[in-house]
Amino acid sequence: MKTIKIVKIGGNIINDEIALHSFLADFAQLKGPKVLVHGGGKLASELAKQLNIPVTMIDGRRVTDIQTLDLITMVYAGKINKQIVAQLQAHNANAIGFTGADGNTIVSTKRPAEPIDYGFAGDVVTVNPQILTVLINNEVTPVFCAITHDANGQLLNTNADTIASEIAIGLSAHFSTELYYCFEKSGVLSDVTDDNSIIEQITSESYAQLKADGVIFEGMLPKLDNCFHALKNNVHKVHIGSTTMLFNSKNKHTSLQLS
Amino acid sequence: MKTIKIVKIGGNIINDEIALHSFLADFAQLKGPKVLVHGGGKLASELAKQLNIPVTMIDGRRVTDIQTLDLITMVYAGKINKQIVAQLQAHNANAIGFTGADGNTIVSTKRPAEPIDYGFAGDVVTVNPQILTVLINNEVTPVFCAITHDANGQLLNTNADTIASEIAIGLSAHFSTELYYCFEKSGVLSDVTDDNSIIEQITSESYAQLKADGVIFEGMLPKLDNCFHALKNNVHKVHIGSTTMLFNSKNKHTSLQLS
Repeated sequence: MKTIKIVKIGGNIINDEIALHSFLADFAQLKGPKVLVHGGGKLASELAKQLNIPVTMIDGRRVTDIQTLDLITMVYAGKINKQIVAQLQAHNANAIGFTGADGNTIVSTKRPAEPIDYGFAGDVVTVNPQILTVLINNEVTPVFCAITHDANGQLLNTNADTIASEIAIGLSAHFSTELYYCFEKSGVLSDVTDDNSIIEQITSESYAQLKADGVIFEGMLPKLDNCFHALKNNVHKVHIGSTTMLFNSKNKHTSLQLS
Repeated sequence: MKTIKIVKIGGNIINDEIALHSFLADFAQLKGPKVLVHGGGKLASELAKQLNIPVTMIDGRRVTDIQTLDLITMVYAGKINKQIVAQLQAHNANAIGFTGADGNTIVSTKRPAEPIDYGFAGDVVTVNPQILTVLINNEVTPVFCAITHDANGQLLNTNADTIASEIAIGLSAHFSTELYYCFEKSGVLSDVTDDNSIIEQITSESYAQLKADGVIFEGMLPKLDNCFHALKNNVHKVHIGSTTMLFNSKNKHTSLQLS
């Protein structure tokens, strides 16, 4: 099977135009099949403020009322996604922008209103890899924003890390999948105050220990849970680090494996 | 060759949620390959007002400064396009949303600043039908908004009627193309005050006469010029009327032919 890279980038790159353009120029040159998944960054909150739409966050997750859903659809699927696609085209990567509604690629279900009502937030139910596979085999690079649909006409705000892992899982029947989570650190740190304390290997066993010892906590837990969920569902490799890990294999970062 | 319908809908449908949903339910049921092209409607101007972005129109065309380009990218490629895609999916039409940047499908060039500076407005240079043809042969319905790119990373605001005719021309090497312009009237009228005065056939010869006689004027001229440009470039059939012409062949509308 051909190897495919599924790369998720977060707010630290999306929010910095120079960093984003530089990353996209490098990403376009990556050999072989690839998929890009991007988060939303701070632009949605800035625009919400301009439009007097209240921003409500619970445990770091956005509460998506109908106005906010319209807003993120404009910002994520419109401005950010299309600017990324246009930049990739300028560097000769034939990109196509996607929400989960496009090609019916990602179907999700609206999260139950109990115990916390997150509004139009979607939890992924199914990935349909057929159209993606056709496009990838035609040298197209799909670019996903963090929006899915319920297959009944409703768009839903969906966590970008989850989208990346679910796409990787969905493509694992057709490709040998490598999932890369790029964020502001060079990897998972054993000491959050020391950027050089990168844990280079985490197994499901050592992950249990790191959690028990309180070394890994808070925001890193759902990210790592996503990673192990992917590995348990046929994703071949998962890596966490800065974007440089994609372009220089000697760059220190965190690799995850089952055991 | 298979027949494909390229359907352009305008503001009268986009601006009316009930009409839009009803149209999309019918459009999804249309048999055979199809492409939808949509204009922007009044939503962009409404949002511009909320954000205090001045709206400048010259001869009915929007002047697209950089703020306006961001705005229309959010509204056309984000909110409107993705809502249409999600609705079509709900009716089992496997749609994918496109700007011209996606799949490098439509390359345009920024319109010269002389004699009138329309800002980031693009005139179509090339349509690349390869990826569209692959998708259409996989039963996907492409849904285009009125944005293209210059292949150097710049998105450009582009007339939706032109996009529809250029896509129809680009697909004519692979399909027998039928282009449908849907608008608020039932066809081209010989008397603008009488909605029943539909001219059912216009040839390039009768068009010259209708222009000379002042029967067809103003906004209809670029629309009809687009139609004849398409017919001269291998588009098989061109029709102008209300959306009902798509679903009821007995519905009166205007058909165009070369001579």
